[in-house]
Amino acid sequence: MGSRETFLPTDDVARDRVMSMKAFVMEEIGETGITEKERPEPGPADAILKPTKGLICTSDCHTVHGAVGERENLTLGHEIVGIVEEVGDDVSDFEAGDRVAVGAITPDWNSRAAQDGHPSQSNGALGGWKFANVKDGTFAEYAHVNDADGNLAHIPDGVSDHEAAYTADMMSTGFAAVENADLPVGGTVAIFAQGPVGLMATKGAVLQGAGEIIAVETVEKRQELARTYGADHVVDFQEGDPVEEIMNLTDGEGVDVAVEALGMDETFQDCIKAVKPGGTVSNVGYHGEGEFRHIPREEWGLGMAEIDVVTDLCPGGRLRIERLLRLLENGRVDPTPMTTHEFAFDEIEEAFELMDSKEDGIIKPLIHFKEE
Amino acid sequence: MGSRETFLPTDDVARDRVMSMKAFVMEEIGETGITEKERPEPGPADAILKPTKGLICTSDCHTVHGAVGERENLTLGHEIVGIVEEVGDDVSDFEAGDRVAVGAITPDWNSRAAQDGHPSQSNGALGGWKFANVKDGTFAEYAHVNDADGNLAHIPDGVSDHEAAYTADMMSTGFAAVENADLPVGGTVAIFAQGPVGLMATKGAVLQGAGEIIAVETVEKRQELARTYGADHVVDFQEGDPVEEIMNLTDGEGVDVAVEALGMDETFQDCIKAVKPGGTVSNVGYHGEGEFRHIPREEWGLGMAEIDVVTDLCPGGRLRIERLLRLLENGRVDPTPMTTHEFAFDEIEEAFELMDSKEDGIIKPLIHFKEE
Amino acid sequence: MGSRETFLPTDDVARDRVMSMKAFVMEEIGETGITEKERPEPGPADAILKPTKGLICTSDCHTVHGAVGERENLTLGHEIVGIVEEVGDDVSDFEAGDRVAVGAITPDWNSRAAQDGHPSQSNGALGGWKFANVKDGTFAEYAHVNDADGNLAHIPDGVSDHEAAYTADMMSTGFAAVENADLPVGGTVAIFAQGPVGLMATKGAVLQGAGEIIAVETVEKRQELARTYGADHVVDFQEGDPVEEIMNLTDGEGVDVAVEALGMDETFQDCIKAVKPGGTVSNVGYHGEGEFRHIPREEWGLGMAEIDVVTDLCPGGRLRIERLLRLLENGRVDPTPMTTHEFAFDEIEEAFELMDSKEDGIIKPLIHFKEE
Amino acid sequence: MGSRETFLPTDDVARDRVMSMKAFVMEEIGETGITEKERPEPGPADAILKPTKGLICTSDCHTVHGAVGERENLTLGHEIVGIVEEVGDDVSDFEAGDRVAVGAITPDWNSRAAQDGHPSQSNGALGGWKFANVKDGTFAEYAHVNDADGNLAHIPDGVSDHEAAYTADMMSTGFAAVENADLPVGGTVAIFAQGPVGLMATKGAVLQGAGEIIAVETVEKRQELARTYGADHVVDFQEGDPVEEIMNLTDGEGVDVAVEALGMDETFQDCIKAVKPGGTVSNVGYHGEGEFRHIPREEWGLGMAEIDVVTDLCPGGRLRIERLLRLLENGRVDPTPMTTHEFAFDEIEEAFELMDSKEDGIIKPLIHFKEE
Repeated sequence: MGSRETFLPTDDVARDRVMSMKAFVMEEIGETGITEKERPEPGPADAILKPTKGLICTSDCHTVHGAVGERENLTLGHEIVGIVEEVGDDVSDFEAGDRVAVGAITPDWNSRAAQDGHPSQSNGALGGWKFANVKDGTFAEYAHVNDADGNLAHIPDGVSDHEAAYTADMMSTGFAAVENADLPVGGTVAIFAQGPVGLMATKGAVLQGAGEIIAVETVEKRQELARTYGADHVVDFQEGDPVEEIMNLTDGEGVDVAVEALGMDETFQDCIKAVKPGGTVSNVGYHGEGEFRHIPREEWGLGMAEIDVVTDLCPGGRLRIERLLRLLENGRVDPTPMTTHEFAFDEIEEAFELMDSKEDGIIKPLIHFKEE
Repeated sequence: MGSRETFLPTDDVARDRVMSMKAFVMEEIGETGITEKERPEPGPADAILKPTKGLICTSDCHTVHGAVGERENLTLGHEIVGIVEEVGDDVSDFEAGDRVAVGAITPDWNSRAAQDGHPSQSNGALGGWKFANVKDGTFAEYAHVNDADGNLAHIPDGVSDHEAAYTADMMSTGFAAVENADLPVGGTVAIFAQGPVGLMATKGAVLQGAGEIIAVETVEKRQELARTYGADHVVDFQEGDPVEEIMNLTDGEGVDVAVEALGMDETFQDCIKAVKPGGTVSNVGYHGEGEFRHIPREEWGLGMAEIDVVTDLCPGGRLRIERLLRLLENGRVDPTPMTTHEFAFDEIEEAFELMDSKEDGIIKPLIHFKEE
Repeated sequence: MGSRETFLPTDDVARDRVMSMKAFVMEEIGETGITEKERPEPGPADAILKPTKGLICTSDCHTVHGAVGERENLTLGHEIVGIVEEVGDDVSDFEAGDRVAVGAITPDWNSRAAQDGHPSQSNGALGGWKFANVKDGTFAEYAHVNDADGNLAHIPDGVSDHEAAYTADMMSTGFAAVENADLPVGGTVAIFAQGPVGLMATKGAVLQGAGEIIAVETVEKRQELARTYGADHVVDFQEGDPVEEIMNLTDGEGVDVAVEALGMDETFQDCIKAVKPGGTVSNVGYHGEGEFRHIPREEWGLGMAEIDVVTDLCPGGRLRIERLLRLLENGRVDPTPMTTHEFAFDEIEEAFELMDSKEDGIIKPLIHFKEE
Repeated sequence: MGSRETFLPTDDVARDRVMSMKAFVMEEIGETGITEKERPEPGPADAILKPTKGLICTSDCHTVHGAVGERENLTLGHEIVGIVEEVGDDVSDFEAGDRVAVGAITPDWNSRAAQDGHPSQSNGALGGWKFANVKDGTFAEYAHVNDADGNLAHIPDGVSDHEAAYTADMMSTGFAAVENADLPVGGTVAIFAQGPVGLMATKGAVLQGAGEIIAVETVEKRQELARTYGADHVVDFQEGDPVEEIMNLTDGEGVDVAVEALGMDETFQDCIKAVKPGGTVSNVGYHGEGEFRHIPREEWGLGMAEIDVVTDLCPGGRLRIERLLRLLENGRVDPTPMTTHEFAFDEIEEAFELMDSKEDGIIKPLIHFKEE
């Protein structure tokens, strides 16, 4: 309300349109539920979407457990596709009825950080992350998108809503893990953890010319998918030291790139140990706990081995999403095998709980919104 | 004689070893033949290979037609793999009997250009290109390789000699066309001409995350292979203006990257016209004729549209070749469908003439050397 | 009118404020004059400035001579600083009374091109160039700036309006010539032409670690300034072939970077000839005439010498201008010696004609707007 | 002896030349002394230098204290210039009598790491660092240099030996701190510690277009020199939290680049805290102690704030040193004010002890070798 993104109706015509809608919210830390909320209205540059398909992200679970602090009746969710319901007066490239995707991150494109090549950090650290963080998320009958021309993308005819929903975060973040590391063609990469982001990093490595991909994972279903997406080796960290195994697989050299896709101190340290001098550790893990991450000094070459540590928050924006959709359109990647479960929007709490518990071999649950 | 790369035997023991060998040479401009030559001897850092498989390159034909000037009894060829016959005293990582690949370009790694990131330009423009240019090439019973530790690569067990021979030039140059252009993941690319370099640029685009690949080619067999290697569209320039067609396929925007893989002024100009503002023209074509290449001023945005033109000479060196071999080892690419013909080394003149005439749908002829 | 950038007043209060103002316009090709125009109004994200100091650019002259086609009563000018008169409702970081600078290029930051790192090409080739091109320029009593938060910058206290006016184009373009070429620290650079952009490229080379700077220029005053800004050598192209001289000065090697700051075919060709293999030609010249620019094939290494040609249109935007202002604030550069003449706004036609004729040793004429 | 770099004479003529020489050695951990050693002989690609001027580095002190482990009679020193005494048969660009500089790091240029753009890591982590680490250093009457053509550089006439000695490490490392971080023109940088490397990082920041430079230092003489080299602000960490002060100086934003030039955990952590989201921490500090370096998780943006940590070991090689010498030749930098003390080679132990104790306001002690 009153924020730059969410406008209340200001005249009678609009007021008549005020309708409540159902939203899946974090009521407070630890509590979720489906509730009634006012339908959002677009500012002049914005759009309102009617979601059709969505995916639940583990970071939604983190949020509910308090990772970003207290929230009150905050609508959850940041991975959806939908139909444009309404656009603001200044939107030129989208109109009601368009089938669209939207990134999990919706930057302020004119911010200094965006001008500096870091749109995800617009107006502050992680500032491009608005959905279910600084404003309501997307798990509702209607969702508000700031800067529609800058942040929406039309879904090509040959791409399903199900596929497209993976562009919002999983594909964007997973691929970025490898893009960010400047992997050489034919280079070697180790990817720690094969959750959906790690799996997309594995596929991203194939799509960026990796010569050898070592996936570190212990859950069987995830190991299988890792192979499906192109892992040449799967290392089970419960069966031995993964760093040792990576060294064995690389003739003692270490890899060009190690991807941290879990957000734990141990895997972070292993990444430093697993790269060769001159190599790169690329972090996409969300590090939710602990005061420090630890760089092992010796393996870091006393700060002189030219081992770099780079980090990224899921790239968003129209151009990014359009490019990811093009990969789907031309069959370069199929993310849908990661969908292990499906739920109606009415059943979203069940889906959320499953995602939180990671039971039943869940990787990603697909949410079907009601379509008229 | 007296060059840094080729050493004549200097003592009695060595002299006994002087043996003649058969070599396929350019006798003079326009004339080729198999002749007897002295077997080369390695300098302290060098190796002598016994080739097992080779490929003929169109640039061998250019050379014979005089493109690099007069030559006398110059051994042709720069795409082979083989067995190490002998190494110099300072070579530490290779020994007789090793099965190895070697790049077409064998840089002087301590040169200023190599230190500057341009090893192919070591000690002068195109200075890393030694085989069949400034010293004898590889189509002989024995071939001399400068800086064995820096320029050879062991072929992994699972990779055949046939496959490995493609790393020397076709894979390295074709992939570099896209690497050099910094293609964004999901970006669009047009590749002008689908000869073996263009085909590997097409595959290289897939391996570097291209979202949409437009191949420009008129020969049917090449069109087919282009599709096999991942082209989403094939544009036949004999059926219309390829630039117009590229604009149609990209909603009038132009592509992120246009690859010139032919070496003609017309295709070069088309590349400038086909890229979007901010896009990149990546040249790997060998421009053998004409005083100028022409940049169309308006489509170039009057020099202000941020359209860059980058160029490359086939990257060589041990690391490069090892990385390309890794792609073969893990099944990321199969270059052998480009081999349309096979010949024994004794029949190499026939192979050369076919490559020169481009008859019989030839793409690449594989040469089998005699193996004991 | 009716465009996204210029809004007519829509209610009575605003209508009362409609006032005419003086503007220096291109009446038609070849004709200029001071005329009365309606004062612009800001859209919700925009600002209206009251210029205080301005500089005339040679590209204004090109425009009047028809380089960008027919225009009718188009206000000229794109290099000014001023005081914010009024801002739209959505502007958050600027308010009336602020002393601000604005780039010559005012991008649409949410465009695909801007998201791709090419804001100057937003919504089409050169699309970020709005002033005196697709909308009224800045030589008027009031000037309209699109996206104030994204395109304005506060001028620090220690920086004069006179200095700050140079950030809009001369400093931004000149420095970008070198930034774009990725000049190595201690590298060599040749800069063709020492007009104000070339002079700022010379200073930009110093500011980016050039080891040796060769300026090519024949006008004495400009030669002097080149030395002032850091040129180690000045080559007079009227006294011999500048390429030959550059080769002499670099032991026959050629330079790492050659900057084209004139926009002529001859200097463009010289740039190709002057760089070493692996070097970069950086174009900031506005190429206003001719069907083609010519790349000399042999010096280009037959397309394989890794000589790249990169181009740029003056970077704009808040962050860019703030960074340039910081250089002024901390005394890293003093552009004011380039100001050879000064005029009141009333005398701007005289200034314009002098800039057009390049008589009287003019480099840049400073325009003083009336300040209350 | 018997290593690839140091060859014993192998024939009678050479054997006659075996002479002892004086060398300043680390006898064992904690013990130094001047001793007699055999004069080194060059391998075919190597050179023997007769040092003329040298500088003592704090890392020599670390070595003596055991930082790189046990050593026996290891000649110390890696910062010298000298006269070529003798070259191997394969050296083509240098001959006896040449006045030359040599980097502290002398890479194996054909190694995979060098081919990968990391010559300082050639053949293992920090593998390019040979002097006083894996072979004898340069504080002797004669010093052996591997790969003379790749690692020596002629000193231009206008550059003194004193100045040139600073290229070996201080200039190369200090400048690299900023090069590595890709500082934008006009960007902000904080440099933690103003020892000689930090001072050269400060100067390097000026030479790479820094808009604002904040030096962190408490020693008065070093504060003064920091200002001389271009620091806009000097923050004394003994007078308050330097991070807080940096935030004040940057309007709460943080800097684009923070340089760690000390090698301590506390300053490393401060660097993470001092950069803005999207910024870069560039480490050139030698981290000699402790099991870990600590990344503060929150200020690191939970691994998603796009704060990168890059590291470097002093770049070496002919091209690098030539470029640094060019900066000296053209007066872009004067490192000699850092020379606070001077000693004859006979007095080198005294110099060493002073450098170790950091007493008497020492920054760098210059060693004068005996010249005939």
